Amino acid sequence: MSSGEDSLIARYFRPLATDPGAFDLTDDAAILKSSADDLVVTTDAIVEGVHFLADDPPDTIARKALRVNLSDLAAKGAAPAGFVLTLALRAADDAWLTAFARGLGEDAAQFGCPLLGGDTVSTPGPLMISITAFGRVPPARMVRRNGAKAGDRVVVTGTIGDAALGLDFLKGGTAGALGDDEREMLIGRYRVPQPRVALTQAVRDHASAAMDVSDGLAGDLAKLCAASGVSAAIDARSIPLSAPAQALLARGAFGIESIVSGGDDYEILCTIPENRFEAFAQAASLAGVRVTAIGTIIAGPAVPRFIDGQGAEIALPRLSYSHF
Amino acid sequence: MSSGEDSLIARYFRPLATDPGAFDLTDDAAILKSSADDLVVTTDAIVEGVHFLADDPPDTIARKALRVNLSDLAAKGAAPAGFVLTLALRAADDAWLTAFARGLGEDAAQFGCPLLGGDTVSTPGPLMISITAFGRVPPARMVRRNGAKAGDRVVVTGTIGDAALGLDFLKGGTAGALGDDEREMLIGRYRVPQPRVALTQAVRDHASAAMDVSDGLAGDLAKLCAASGVSAAIDARSIPLSAPAQALLARGAFGIESIVSGGDDYEILCTIPENRFEAFAQAASLAGVRVTAIGTIIAGPAVPRFIDGQGAEIALPRLSYSHF
Repeated sequence: MSSGEDSLIARYFRPLATDPGAFDLTDDAAILKSSADDLVVTTDAIVEGVHFLADDPPDTIARKALRVNLSDLAAKGAAPAGFVLTLALRAADDAWLTAFARGLGEDAAQFGCPLLGGDTVSTPGPLMISITAFGRVPPARMVRRNGAKAGDRVVVTGTIGDAALGLDFLKGGTAGALGDDEREMLIGRYRVPQPRVALTQAVRDHASAAMDVSDGLAGDLAKLCAASGVSAAIDARSIPLSAPAQALLARGAFGIESIVSGGDDYEILCTIPENRFEAFAQAASLAGVRVTAIGTIIAGPAVPRFIDGQGAEIALPRLSYSHF
Repeated sequence: MSSGEDSLIARYFRPLATDPGAFDLTDDAAILKSSADDLVVTTDAIVEGVHFLADDPPDTIARKALRVNLSDLAAKGAAPAGFVLTLALRAADDAWLTAFARGLGEDAAQFGCPLLGGDTVSTPGPLMISITAFGRVPPARMVRRNGAKAGDRVVVTGTIGDAALGLDFLKGGTAGALGDDEREMLIGRYRVPQPRVALTQAVRDHASAAMDVSDGLAGDLAKLCAASGVSAAIDARSIPLSAPAQALLARGAFGIESIVSGGDDYEILCTIPENRFEAFAQAASLAGVRVTAIGTIIAGPAVPRFIDGQGAEIALPRLSYSHF
């Protein structure tokens, strides 16, 4: 009696629907219980050939689809509460779906973000996964893009540029022969971002503005500054780079400009008032998340400037990835 | 400084983001304010070539994308609160986007369901629109699929089968020469469903179970009965049909079996306890929504039976549309 779609949902996705509000995916809608918190809603979709590659392992595709949304929630200071999934598939391939659901379920459990519902549709085109994720913050405490003030420090988590370098390898880029381990590390950073969920509380407590870096540090910083009506001066030498990225940069295989305009970092970019910085850094340390101050918010409407070791502004031919 | 994607969002979609929690679409996430109500979450995606046709007018594509979700909310007894949109486009075509955003905005205003956020991505494949919609119900009052009891009346809103007949015309079906007006009416029912938002309160107050009919009446009734652990006997002669559908049926151009298994009705299917039926019918009448009792819930695990005028069971080769 069940249609193929219902069987597919029951088989692969019902085990992930651990929240009572998901009704075991047997109803048309889910419930998010009333609470004193505001509900933060974010949506990010990933498309085969655009955000991931057709031969990426299915579990990593699932993880990326969820993690790009968890990254948004963390940057907004919101604790994960659940997500809904739209999956557009060409066909129901058992091995692929099994691995996809396994990766998704492991991440949902790890980050405390259960599947609440979704829709599975057929498409003749590329695979697409759209996730809408929900988080909770105390009333009116979502961290916005628009609160940065002159004098605030500009901070990023983790390291920048790895994912763009990993994608370059996957696309056959040959610049800079790295060892297998280093190459795998960069590719892993492209395929499976590390959402900084552990930093959620510190961001909420201390950041004047925040967003996640998904389209490139330079472009995303420009967006944050525009929303806040400020500018920024960034010391390019202080941008945190992984060892492989440093090696490639030292070798001249890539310039810093491609690192700051490459996409898929999924690190948090935030601004911290000077008098909060020490407390923020301590909280980050306790959370086990590396944070690095890379510059300062300054007054004015100018596009943020990236300054090199000689004090000269670095020319950026493009700021970030754009779909259109 | 804005990327193309940001410009696109600002130009076409910001005017639709009338809720303060949408932050004019200038942030990474939206806020749904805390309230005493439960939040009902539903997701439905539509894909070019599957749920709509490539040459459907863009404003009707937008309306359908939103309305299929509003239909779910109404069937769950939830008042619309807002939605997020994922739009996967091959290219940013100005005329298409203008018409799409106009249709979406008009429906968002008409149904009190503002745009809260979303994601716009490029795809080399078919156009796809995924909407996650939010509604509010008093705590624990969402109307489920699983509450139908033996003796309840089975009720549907509107008329059944029109959209499937309209799609048949659009695909070049020639059976049964109708007048232009009648053909347009059926095509309109395929392209622009009528979500029964006006019936929301009556469903919440009186229905023991409800869902919307999206994949075909027979299949969706079977799902409702399975969730409730009951069966049903349906008097096929009482299924409400539009005048063009009646004409085609009388002419033998289509059988009732294709009408009850055709998709895209987006009517509400619900079960009403006998002692509530009069109050429900009155509330529906006040809301201006046609409701028709088509049968009765009966005990047992059998697939619901559709009975013809001679008392014989109608054979249904398939119950509903399935993607896989």
